[in-house]
Amino acid sequence: MNTPDFATESPLLPIRTVAVIGLGLLGGSVAKSLRRTGADSQVRVIGWARRAETREFAIDNDFVDAVSDDFIEASKLADLVIIATPVDRIAEYALKIAAACPHVLITDVGSTKCGIVQAVATVPEAMARFVASHPIAGSEKTGIEHARGDLLDDKLVVLTPSGTENSGVVDAIERFWQSTGARTLRLSPQRHDELMAVTSHAPHLLAAVVARQVPEEALRMVGSGWLDTTRIAAGDEGLWTAIVCENRAAILAAIQATAQDLSQLIEIIQSADDPALTTYLRDARKRREAASSPPSFPPPS
Amino acid sequence: MNTPDFATESPLLPIRTVAVIGLGLLGGSVAKSLRRTGADSQVRVIGWARRAETREFAIDNDFVDAVSDDFIEASKLADLVIIATPVDRIAEYALKIAAACPHVLITDVGSTKCGIVQAVATVPEAMARFVASHPIAGSEKTGIEHARGDLLDDKLVVLTPSGTENSGVVDAIERFWQSTGARTLRLSPQRHDELMAVTSHAPHLLAAVVARQVPEEALRMVGSGWLDTTRIAAGDEGLWTAIVCENRAAILAAIQATAQDLSQLIEIIQSADDPALTTYLRDARKRREAASSPPSFPPPS
Repeated sequence: MNTPDFATESPLLPIRTVAVIGLGLLGGSVAKSLRRTGADSQVRVIGWARRAETREFAIDNDFVDAVSDDFIEASKLADLVIIATPVDRIAEYALKIAAACPHVLITDVGSTKCGIVQAVATVPEAMARFVASHPIAGSEKTGIEHARGDLLDDKLVVLTPSGTENSGVVDAIERFWQSTGARTLRLSPQRHDELMAVTSHAPHLLAAVVARQVPEEALRMVGSGWLDTTRIAAGDEGLWTAIVCENRAAILAAIQATAQDLSQLIEIIQSADDPALTTYLRDARKRREAASSPPSFPPPS
Repeated sequence: MNTPDFATESPLLPIRTVAVIGLGLLGGSVAKSLRRTGADSQVRVIGWARRAETREFAIDNDFVDAVSDDFIEASKLADLVIIATPVDRIAEYALKIAAACPHVLITDVGSTKCGIVQAVATVPEAMARFVASHPIAGSEKTGIEHARGDLLDDKLVVLTPSGTENSGVVDAIERFWQSTGARTLRLSPQRHDELMAVTSHAPHLLAAVVARQVPEEALRMVGSGWLDTTRIAAGDEGLWTAIVCENRAAILAAIQATAQDLSQLIEIIQSADDPALTTYLRDARKRREAASSPPSFPPPS
């Protein structure tokens, strides 16, 4: 495998310039958060977006130091490229950038990992410098106009090295995320995708199912409970269709398990087994309450 | 039917003293909001709670003007009694209060209505002065320590007259709720319970199902989406078991419809019919977005 020497020689390579490819909600927020900490760390941020209005917005609102209308040109100026496009385009950008920019490190912010890692791994020279990442942060809103410099504060970034990357590269990208204030965790791409199906992707679909149940004329009767439960159902259907395509098997397993658990609940209610219902709801409450004070992370290595 | 004369003679009877029976999250919030507007409206609030600590908390924190350890004594001092106990106890309190206090108006804040109205209607003298109400406001938290004077601000109060009340009483109680700043809507008890099953009760159960899907060790990976979707699952299992008992048929219909819609979604994902998935998610997004700007209410009569 052709591993760039600098990565092994200098695992702590300072990252001075970052290119953010795709300036939507997450890319814009990553850019803004780098600029916010930039005064200390001297990180320079170059942004690329397909649409001219997005690039103008990014410049006018200080999301980036500079923009480019050519993602290869933007990447050539960078030590690290962060790909923040919809998940179904990430591998394609990673491979093009790796081919054109032989020394740059590459990561991404996609919420699915297996498909991306598999696709990039078809080109070992690209894979040696690519480490897939997923900052667990987001919103039902889309677009740079909703991006916020604090969106990633105190959030978890999961890195999913497949084992074929250069370990110096993995360390460098993990340290980069930590330098932005994020906590980090390493998981295999498979385990990441399974866990995200359960903690994010299936709940998104369930929120959509719940949102669809309320007839138009009853919308004025919804309370804060329904509004919270269905908030993420306002997410962009194109982005979410792409996520389902990328993580179909794990998502199917997760929503089938949910459907089974729902059937069990329906049986309990049908049979008027109220003690079982109370136990069911108590288990749910305890699980939810435990999430408000989750087990602490291992300290950063 | 033995209808008290004052109600027909004086439909605008000023309500000077209100007794709140049950000082939990909702009862405490109603009491506090009346005290807040009390400076203008001169409403005096008497509170009753089973536990001495709750009564002390209510006095010490200015939720009420006075407390009583006897709900009949508290009710005798009032022009209007608001019953804010768990739903499965409301009718029992209403009947006892109606029997002991021949002139008082009675309402409640329960989130189910059919069972309560049916039970009170067995005593026409009680029913003539009882109008069931449901302020659509709440929290996953319980207890007076989480009650807030602004919990009902700009909220909807649904009144569910069954047709056997004195219309002057219905008007007086509707005006009372409006005087607290709430919007009001009249529905039949049946329609209320059907709509609440869809907009509140079934979503609560679905949030519980979603909360139970995340294994303990994955709780540290949940993001703000999951936390919002499952927030109401942290609600008290005893209160929610009582709600399910009171509204079992409508809740079953609602969650069975949800389960069917979920099966349809699973089929779409299984068959990789991505255009259908996008359409499904778009419909959900539009429904959710419409709830953020629901159709306006008819102006108060």
